[in-house]
Amino acid sequence: MHPCNSPSAHTTCHIVRSLLFAPANRADLVLKFPRISADCSVIDLEDGTPVADKSSARRGLAELFLRTRESGFVGRLGVRVNAPNSEFFADDIKAAIECRADVILVPKVEKPDDLEPVTRAIQSAGVDIDVFAGIETAAGVLNAAQICRCAPELRAVIFGAEDLATDIGARRTVEGSEVLVARSMVLLAAKATRILAIDQAVVDIRDEALFKRDSEAGRNLGYDGKICLTPRQTELANLAFSPTNEEISYAERLIAHCRNAYTQGIGTIDFEGKMIDAPLIKRARDILYLRQFAHHDQAR
Amino acid sequence: MHPCNSPSAHTTCHIVRSLLFAPANRADLVLKFPRISADCSVIDLEDGTPVADKSSARRGLAELFLRTRESGFVGRLGVRVNAPNSEFFADDIKAAIECRADVILVPKVEKPDDLEPVTRAIQSAGVDIDVFAGIETAAGVLNAAQICRCAPELRAVIFGAEDLATDIGARRTVEGSEVLVARSMVLLAAKATRILAIDQAVVDIRDEALFKRDSEAGRNLGYDGKICLTPRQTELANLAFSPTNEEISYAERLIAHCRNAYTQGIGTIDFEGKMIDAPLIKRARDILYLRQFAHHDQAR
Amino acid sequence: MHPCNSPSAHTTCHIVRSLLFAPANRADLVLKFPRISADCSVIDLEDGTPVADKSSARRGLAELFLRTRESGFVGRLGVRVNAPNSEFFADDIKAAIECRADVILVPKVEKPDDLEPVTRAIQSAGVDIDVFAGIETAAGVLNAAQICRCAPELRAVIFGAEDLATDIGARRTVEGSEVLVARSMVLLAAKATRILAIDQAVVDIRDEALFKRDSEAGRNLGYDGKICLTPRQTELANLAFSPTNEEISYAERLIAHCRNAYTQGIGTIDFEGKMIDAPLIKRARDILYLRQFAHHDQAR
Repeated sequence: MHPCNSPSAHTTCHIVRSLLFAPANRADLVLKFPRISADCSVIDLEDGTPVADKSSARRGLAELFLRTRESGFVGRLGVRVNAPNSEFFADDIKAAIECRADVILVPKVEKPDDLEPVTRAIQSAGVDIDVFAGIETAAGVLNAAQICRCAPELRAVIFGAEDLATDIGARRTVEGSEVLVARSMVLLAAKATRILAIDQAVVDIRDEALFKRDSEAGRNLGYDGKICLTPRQTELANLAFSPTNEEISYAERLIAHCRNAYTQGIGTIDFEGKMIDAPLIKRARDILYLRQFAHHDQAR
Repeated sequence: MHPCNSPSAHTTCHIVRSLLFAPANRADLVLKFPRISADCSVIDLEDGTPVADKSSARRGLAELFLRTRESGFVGRLGVRVNAPNSEFFADDIKAAIECRADVILVPKVEKPDDLEPVTRAIQSAGVDIDVFAGIETAAGVLNAAQICRCAPELRAVIFGAEDLATDIGARRTVEGSEVLVARSMVLLAAKATRILAIDQAVVDIRDEALFKRDSEAGRNLGYDGKICLTPRQTELANLAFSPTNEEISYAERLIAHCRNAYTQGIGTIDFEGKMIDAPLIKRARDILYLRQFAHHDQAR
Repeated sequence: MHPCNSPSAHTTCHIVRSLLFAPANRADLVLKFPRISADCSVIDLEDGTPVADKSSARRGLAELFLRTRESGFVGRLGVRVNAPNSEFFADDIKAAIECRADVILVPKVEKPDDLEPVTRAIQSAGVDIDVFAGIETAAGVLNAAQICRCAPELRAVIFGAEDLATDIGARRTVEGSEVLVARSMVLLAAKATRILAIDQAVVDIRDEALFKRDSEAGRNLGYDGKICLTPRQTELANLAFSPTNEEISYAERLIAHCRNAYTQGIGTIDFEGKMIDAPLIKRARDILYLRQFAHHDQAR
């Protein structure tokens, strides 16, 4: 089979260009999910919810899910539980499973064992829930490759630059070179196991230009999507993690040129000044696969 | 307990903002230690002392310690021994222990086993000496995570960019991107095990601007301190690795704002344009902890 | 022995500043090898040769080797076989050994086991063939340290940025920060095991300035040479990966100064504004070792 025609590696994945958070104790914000077109929306029991409110927020989770769904929300709905080393972890997992969350997001995963309770709970409940793991400590980054391999339910890792900066005592800069290595290592770990990689938050929620630059940098590294804290960030992430019109057009031209060359039995060929071979062709195919979501997004 | 009130992760560490070296065969330079306020001062039996002088320098070590202490030096005093694969290693360790050094610095550590003789010697002597490990070869960088975990006496790793550049055949540039990945990997390994990370030397000893830029880059990455080769570099390092007045002021404002929000039971909150959660608060607390040293430093 | 006089770590290696490829189904391009002074020239059965042509190209390999050698080519001649997970791998290895290739280049090596068939085939044929491994997937990068240690015949790793970008979904930029971490990790793995590291291709074959910048960046990182796609890229790579006249002159001055200091028994010394110790001296010696190839290159 010619490489232009083989199925894309992305075919079986849900895409997650935007991962939107709202605190579990802020029903007003959660109930806005239907009006924001995030690829995945997450109710946050962890850092967004104060310790004093965690128990009541957990008890209210089922009703919050119900109300969100009833208000017309058809997207993927997840729960961020508290960290594996916290007193809340076990109860949070139980609550998330009872709500039939689409996704359980486990923050501050530091080693493969940390995901074991989630996997076991999901399997014994006999439900189909995706697990996303937050990698946001030095230990987590160093163990990222093993973490990505450890759980069959694991579908995505999320790189948390703010928590990491705190853990390692880094000072955040605009260029972000203080987290570049960790950001790349988490990406490599995800891609080596064919799971999604979701990029860091931009906490300066009013700096749109920064969010755009940071999205582009993440997209360039190979990230599939980004943490979002506001409706506007969600829009920008959906745009940044979809192929551009130029990329789509280039991919179409290249694939056409390449099919033609293939018909004529020519191998390495020069197209618009570049040497073309298998990786370039595969990249073009991946872009054309993602094109459908870009169009869908513009339509809604 | 509210996160604003929990103890800092740094509480139990000696701080090492500046790690000053003088060759063991240069008593004149060692005896200047009392006049230079390095957080840790090290008598160097390794690269600073020529091979022909190593034996005599080692024999003179005890007297040099005595004279330095008698001349009024109250700081931490260490010895850099020769590398584990050298003929001098065993004798150097013995001499350092006999001198009751505060710190034994082992250069060119490449694997956990390299530290075993030091640990054994310290434990059988029944003394309390901290071990610092120099990570300055490709093998050392690749094994950094294991090295950091291997010895209970290990309190710090030191990233040696010059030796590393030689080992890997890199060409040193002003931006330093040729060592960025190694510099970050050593930092991550240190922070994953909660030991100190001390950054590379600047060998252009007359280029003050370069030292300032390089200190800031190291500080941004999360390094706790820096190798110093001169009195002036020591002053600059003490400054660069202390929190700035702006950071202290921001941390104070944030903690105050945050306590107030906590009292009112509000979770995720917006402070001066940033979304605040646990990592930001923890970072503020760490800065306020380090503040005391900055003040102490300005006073002396 | 004084460090100025000890033998260089590079002494036993063939140098590979330029690694030139031509597709196996393009005899016209292969037969140009004698006119291009690449340190190693490779006939490509992988991405350069279309699937439909692979069998015939493999059958024609022996004759192509013969014709290339007969046309006066005296350099090192290698074969890039297809990837370990392809149907062509076993037959390609067999053909390369029968041709008495100097080098077998295995692309897309992802784990140590991938090289096992090559090692076994070389050893059972009782021939002396070097193996080069292409590291160009996320899994390969994460396993690079183990891959470099696994096979005694392994003499070089090649960092393939284009294939890696496709594998991880990265978008290629001019600065290349999307592959910097992988590029550095592959370099560190190679240097930790004392094998050669060969840097990424520049597919914009008409952009000479880009090739120069990218060669310099690779050289700064510690790479020994670079993939080349054209005669002009080969010339530029040979130049970029040889020491400059300034470097040679500086190394000569430093070694002279240093021998002098050694004679006088002085240790750490200040030379042209820099603190000199063992790593600087070793770097100078390495440059003087490589000088011979630079001269040879200018002569031919």
